[in-house]
Amino acid sequence: MKLHGYFRSSAAYRVRIALNLKGMSAEQLSHHLRKGEQLAPAYLAINPQGLVPTMEDDAGAIITQSLAIIEWLDETHPTPPLLPKEPLRRAKVRAFALAIACDTHPVQNLKVLARLRELGLPEDKVTAWAAWVNREGLAACERLIAKEAGPFCFGAAPTMADLCLVPQLANARRFGVDVNAYPRLLQAEAAAKAIPAFADAAPDKQPDAE
Amino acid sequence: MKLHGYFRSSAAYRVRIALNLKGMSAEQLSHHLRKGEQLAPAYLAINPQGLVPTMEDDAGAIITQSLAIIEWLDETHPTPPLLPKEPLRRAKVRAFALAIACDTHPVQNLKVLARLRELGLPEDKVTAWAAWVNREGLAACERLIAKEAGPFCFGAAPTMADLCLVPQLANARRFGVDVNAYPRLLQAEAAAKAIPAFADAAPDKQPDAE
Repeated sequence: MKLHGYFRSSAAYRVRIALNLKGMSAEQLSHHLRKGEQLAPAYLAINPQGLVPTMEDDAGAIITQSLAIIEWLDETHPTPPLLPKEPLRRAKVRAFALAIACDTHPVQNLKVLARLRELGLPEDKVTAWAAWVNREGLAACERLIAKEAGPFCFGAAPTMADLCLVPQLANARRFGVDVNAYPRLLQAEAAAKAIPAFADAAPDKQPDAE
Repeated sequence: MKLHGYFRSSAAYRVRIALNLKGMSAEQLSHHLRKGEQLAPAYLAINPQGLVPTMEDDAGAIITQSLAIIEWLDETHPTPPLLPKEPLRRAKVRAFALAIACDTHPVQNLKVLARLRELGLPEDKVTAWAAWVNREGLAACERLIAKEAGPFCFGAAPTMADLCLVPQLANARRFGVDVNAYPRLLQAEAAAKAIPAFADAAPDKQPDAE
């Protein structure tokens, strides 16, 4: 199995955590996003969006989109589960993950920030945009799990929600967001980071880290 | 069951199609997005993101995020299925849906376009931004299903992919995108629109349409 990614990509980071939790390994192929390597024709042939991650299974099948990869891993390797069993609980976990994967991360990714620069926005306003997006997303996430038992986002074990949360908090800090405003999220993050599956997936532990 | 939405919201539109395909009905509660009704405290209490849609089931349980709602509907009302059975095929459908729901729609929604205006961008550049986002997303989607049998995105029946595609094509046209560049997507849209479940879910058929 091969995972196309980049050490700092928070979407690839989600998949690295999932693989570690499942006790699986994949050959990591790095595409340097700031150098535009994700736009090389050979990569676009497998991922027409020019985004990471992309998963290639042992038979050569291609799966794009981090949450589609994670759901596929969970369906094909069910232990430990990354989603609860009961449909309503699954929906709650998915909604939290999507609040990050849809409404937060893509609105502050490299591509969008580059476009803002092209429109003439100075660097401080580009950073302010990214910080705004992260604050809006994380503030909503904090409220989504306010009544959920900890220490993880949804109870005593990590789920797809934690896989999305931990990388996003790293992004938020990079953009100068005061994450102390989100104590419930920090509780989940602390629980997650105490597990080697999360710690080993961190950007600075990857072979392509700079 | 209650569906909080807005006639023109493409995320709510996805859920309306899903309900119709399942032969289910929900009371529709409209929140006028341009008037900011989604930011009223009573609504934020059930949807801290201040986005539509939100589903309330008959027991009062709340589900946010259109794709979480659709997966929940599919798990609790499996016929007709909105995802294939085989894990790899499910992943392909989800990846297509996520390419729209993560990387396209949220980068051109009302909130983001309003922020661009606040930053001083003139109206023609705001529209150009939205058109760029739609072109990037749809061009990738066209390639994701280039080798898939039609007429729908993935074969002979509609899936979650078509639920995301049809509303996004409507958005793209509103922003002036030449959708003729995506013949495979138009083939899927034509097949979908021939089905009452899709036609009846269209924005102009909703009670809150203007």
